[in-house]
Amino acid sequence: MFQFELIAADPESGARAGRFHTPHGVISTPVFAPVGTQATVKALRPADLVELGAQLVLANTYHLYLRPGDDIVQEMGGLHRFMAWPGPILTDSGGFQVFSLSGSRKIDADGVTFQSHIDGSRHRFTPEKSIAIQENLAADIIMAFDECPPPDNYDYVKESLERTHAWAARCLAAKRRSDQALFGIVQGGIFPDLRQASARFLMELDFPGYAIGGLSVGESKADMLATLDVLHPILPAGKPRYLMGVGTAEDLINAVLRGIDIFDCVLPTRLARHGAAMLLGGRLNLDNAQYTRDPAPLDATCGCYTCHNFSRAYLRHLVRANEILGHVLLTTHNVYFLLNLMRQLRQAILDGRAAGFAAEILRHYRVPTEQPGL
Amino acid sequence: MFQFELIAADPESGARAGRFHTPHGVISTPVFAPVGTQATVKALRPADLVELGAQLVLANTYHLYLRPGDDIVQEMGGLHRFMAWPGPILTDSGGFQVFSLSGSRKIDADGVTFQSHIDGSRHRFTPEKSIAIQENLAADIIMAFDECPPPDNYDYVKESLERTHAWAARCLAAKRRSDQALFGIVQGGIFPDLRQASARFLMELDFPGYAIGGLSVGESKADMLATLDVLHPILPAGKPRYLMGVGTAEDLINAVLRGIDIFDCVLPTRLARHGAAMLLGGRLNLDNAQYTRDPAPLDATCGCYTCHNFSRAYLRHLVRANEILGHVLLTTHNVYFLLNLMRQLRQAILDGRAAGFAAEILRHYRVPTEQPGL
Repeated sequence: MFQFELIAADPESGARAGRFHTPHGVISTPVFAPVGTQATVKALRPADLVELGAQLVLANTYHLYLRPGDDIVQEMGGLHRFMAWPGPILTDSGGFQVFSLSGSRKIDADGVTFQSHIDGSRHRFTPEKSIAIQENLAADIIMAFDECPPPDNYDYVKESLERTHAWAARCLAAKRRSDQALFGIVQGGIFPDLRQASARFLMELDFPGYAIGGLSVGESKADMLATLDVLHPILPAGKPRYLMGVGTAEDLINAVLRGIDIFDCVLPTRLARHGAAMLLGGRLNLDNAQYTRDPAPLDATCGCYTCHNFSRAYLRHLVRANEILGHVLLTTHNVYFLLNLMRQLRQAILDGRAAGFAAEILRHYRVPTEQPGL
Repeated sequence: MFQFELIAADPESGARAGRFHTPHGVISTPVFAPVGTQATVKALRPADLVELGAQLVLANTYHLYLRPGDDIVQEMGGLHRFMAWPGPILTDSGGFQVFSLSGSRKIDADGVTFQSHIDGSRHRFTPEKSIAIQENLAADIIMAFDECPPPDNYDYVKESLERTHAWAARCLAAKRRSDQALFGIVQGGIFPDLRQASARFLMELDFPGYAIGGLSVGESKADMLATLDVLHPILPAGKPRYLMGVGTAEDLINAVLRGIDIFDCVLPTRLARHGAAMLLGGRLNLDNAQYTRDPAPLDATCGCYTCHNFSRAYLRHLVRANEILGHVLLTTHNVYFLLNLMRQLRQAILDGRAAGFAAEILRHYRVPTEQPGL
């Protein structure tokens, strides 16, 4: 179980294609995982996710612990049965949300005490508690409990890293289920020496996969890519690498070129709820009055249900009328957009033309686009 | 076009099964039409409606005139293309919404001046304007512009009826398109003599179908059924009869027994958005804490996607977390519930056992149910 087969590597970059075996199916990498924070990818049914070609779905430990409660999810047969998603699931550790979403929180060497963002009630996460919750949720891939500090304060990041490393070891020791793969999370902010030290420490613990956390949290694009460049030669080639919380087309492409296999991000679902469609080169915001009488689909070259059936004028109408179907159709398009991009990129890696494909995609992000509204 | 074939009649009641031919397909009656107020059945894609077996969808003239504007719908190819629904569509006249939704309104012999519920802007509907809008929207079945008065003030209903009748004649005169069937609307409140007079007046004008308006607006169930009993022997057997705005299982069954062929109602979609599922005998409200750990589907005998895949515990979680998927899955169930009920009822009519089937269904509404939460 949890075998990671590397089946192709791009000769001109770090891009690689693989197959990651999990108890609920094989994930073809590189892969983008839509986020199902509360055990639902917002606005999509499992049947829709299957139709879109989703292979892996993320769910959030922090949210599900608070509501409905991981004990209830466990009692209902675990996340797969609860949300009726038959494929692989990944849960995060709750660490990121404790630091970004909760009310007041207090961190100590042992764990974090925090207030629920829902009702203000007090709770405590430790590495052992995070693993226990994730074992109740029963995802295929689970994550070590970590701290995600602001990326640019060296002294704080260094101190935080020691906690995160101690917690990683405790997570490994606490883990009991053999049908879950526990990934370590490399932290270290934007500092190459800390990132290197973090990767080496975690590799000593020998996790079946490594996540890169603490990026896409405010640092520059250059810092993000430089960090990936630092880690690419260090992390073991034979294990999957997961860049957490990254989800623009540009970032996905750049990260795959630097050896990343797995991604997740709320961007496609969140943009949809704000009336925006993801297109190559940018976004199309349906609030823009210029689409009022536009009979064209979001993207005439797109293969999704939304683009096959509906005009920008109709989608704009739904957005302005705050109709649920607007969220459904834009989410469908945005998730398809990223899944399809990753499928095409994977094929390009298999065909030995990844660098060229990536350059072609990235070109859309380098020149001012003439497409209106982007 | 617009041929109505009567193919079976129940010997023990007024129930009948038919086939109504429209430019966008044949409607097997009796039929329930889900409501797509703003050119979308809330939370459902056209593909979902096809899968659920919807045959006819209603859209609202008042809403679409205000937003996005019937001129835009017309420019985008009419409602069928705009909302990507390939089957028959029915639009109402806007009359009901002008009286129930708009801000201040002033009625005169010629028409109604009213304020938009969206932005307070002033507008005027006349019979001719309603028909012009409905011709732009391009539904298969359109409705005469009428007044829907409170049902129990004889003098006012009588005065209003004269306006409604004059407007019906003007609608018929204003109509230009031959690919739309214009239905007259019988009004008259709860008063048998006024209902009879209304039916006779409209039959003189020879509409291709007759709607019964002004019911399910606060009168008693007994008054509603008595009104249907008055109209059943008067209305021509060879034309379809449409009872507007009625949508409980009990009411549908009782109305079909009294000769009604077509129904529409926002109830299944509205209840879904309030976290309630329609079941035989009543409703299951997922806000109820007793479903927190309930692994059962909404209805183990139901054939819908929701009941095949999800527990009450999961649906309750979605409702409490205000997740869009909760609206989607409950809408799916509720619409399926009514469509399936009508399919079963139609089959019972074809099999000559309509009265027995109806009695079996109505039994659930007569005895206190033991099912929790109903």
